[in-house]
Amino acid sequence: MKCRICEKKATIKLPQYNLKLCDSCFLDFFKKRVKKTIDSFKMFSLYDDILIAVSGGKDSLVLWSVLSELGYRVSGLHIDLGIEGYSEFCKQKVLDFSESRGLPLKIIGIKEIFGVGIKELARIAKRASCRICGMIRRYLINREAKDFYCVVTGHTLDDEASSLLGNVIHWHVGFLKRQYPVLEENGSLKRKAKPFSFVFENEIVFYAKLKNIDFVRERCPLSKKATSYVYKSMFSFLEERMPHIKLSFYKEFLKRKNYFFSEEKEQLKECKICGYLTVTDICNFCKLKKKVEEYQFQKA
Amino acid sequence: MKCRICEKKATIKLPQYNLKLCDSCFLDFFKKRVKKTIDSFKMFSLYDDILIAVSGGKDSLVLWSVLSELGYRVSGLHIDLGIEGYSEFCKQKVLDFSESRGLPLKIIGIKEIFGVGIKELARIAKRASCRICGMIRRYLINREAKDFYCVVTGHTLDDEASSLLGNVIHWHVGFLKRQYPVLEENGSLKRKAKPFSFVFENEIVFYAKLKNIDFVRERCPLSKKATSYVYKSMFSFLEERMPHIKLSFYKEFLKRKNYFFSEEKEQLKECKICGYLTVTDICNFCKLKKKVEEYQFQKA
Repeated sequence: MKCRICEKKATIKLPQYNLKLCDSCFLDFFKKRVKKTIDSFKMFSLYDDILIAVSGGKDSLVLWSVLSELGYRVSGLHIDLGIEGYSEFCKQKVLDFSESRGLPLKIIGIKEIFGVGIKELARIAKRASCRICGMIRRYLINREAKDFYCVVTGHTLDDEASSLLGNVIHWHVGFLKRQYPVLEENGSLKRKAKPFSFVFENEIVFYAKLKNIDFVRERCPLSKKATSYVYKSMFSFLEERMPHIKLSFYKEFLKRKNYFFSEEKEQLKECKICGYLTVTDICNFCKLKKKVEEYQFQKA
Repeated sequence: MKCRICEKKATIKLPQYNLKLCDSCFLDFFKKRVKKTIDSFKMFSLYDDILIAVSGGKDSLVLWSVLSELGYRVSGLHIDLGIEGYSEFCKQKVLDFSESRGLPLKIIGIKEIFGVGIKELARIAKRASCRICGMIRRYLINREAKDFYCVVTGHTLDDEASSLLGNVIHWHVGFLKRQYPVLEENGSLKRKAKPFSFVFENEIVFYAKLKNIDFVRERCPLSKKATSYVYKSMFSFLEERMPHIKLSFYKEFLKRKNYFFSEEKEQLKECKICGYLTVTDICNFCKLKKKVEEYQFQKA
């Protein structure tokens, strides 16, 4: 097995591109693809301050590593979700990574804001924990990004393709209209970019291995029933039989998106409490805060 | 386990409707659903002559059985594909069924038309056998339906949902525009209807069992690599985890179809040889016939 580029011994096989590469050519290939995505979608430049949301998982840590190597000005933001037996562990991985690379990091804790962690919040709000968690993270990341040009997240092609599949299977037109590698700033909603939109997870795992990036391998204990995993497994089943299908499904969607699902700007207004853009008078974050306060008051 | 309708002992569990039924209530439920589909899509009436394409598999034989019981005027058409060790067996199942029920049947053979069977035709045409087979069947069914009001086929919800999924994954806009339980007559292209569009395969298997319908259980030996099976397995994986998802995926698509994929009539013209409507000057069936003649001539 020879490296397609330099003809030395290949160390990785990428069936999605029908490609075999050696360590050094892979690193080069990987970085070039990420750079190309950033440039072709005009995500941000080398002069912009960008904020990366890091969970401690492979995707966000590898993205942080690549963006720093490419010379971007990236600061990390970690949200401590307060999940017992899990969040402490995630925080430690992020801290270790930022310290060893000398990269700036800010940590904010859900418990410091609400007095309780995600699990309890979901119970109080009577909602699925993944839903509450997603809403809170989006809110806090946006709030913390106030002085940055752009927020970046480690969403991979596997995430994008499987969430696209889920949105198509349920014909969630609203989500289909908004799914894109970059979302422009909209009032108080910060610009968001996903530089890994065309990167497969197996590439990320290999990159992490070569760069000795230590990440959290365990799945969040609260997400065991998450439907996103069902779509991911479903798509991996297909990808095994039709390599490249994830990439072509997502790319073709992007090409035809405006034809199918023409974008109409949603009517958003400012939350009467915090000013966050929302479809109702009070945003979900502030509603949740109120609910928790009432709950604590009744308990006391 | 009690029957939801009559409270006698239930014999079948239908997770897709969260329903348990006894034999007799199931038969009633099944027939009513098929009748409702035929009526709500105005497929055909009790006074129309309809032609059913029967392969010998469970779907088409069960459809033939139900339509006859419901009082429709249905004649069978079987196409003998000339696949060694398989087609003879299929033909026999169809013959047995039609004789035991006293239902009219016509059989036409590919070998009588081309001199060779599907396998050889695919080799001569240098195309996948499923593709050649589908094209020939569509052509012959349409030709034989000349004096009928409508052609019906046994496509089930499993077929429709998985082919919809395949069309979405490849963003085959042309197919997406045309996918519907009934297709209006268009010049020489006969009206086509799929009364099982909302029926799950497990219902058909149970119906066949209760009515002692003996069908071909083996998959066609030429279709082992067919991608349609990949989408079917993929969807069954999802349905196990989210019962009802096939039905809602397909139904929601039908509701929103015109919004997403507005139908523009395709520019079809008559084949210069046989008059069949096609997008090119000569239809694929006539092209294939010519190719086979040339091949035979060169061989002789």
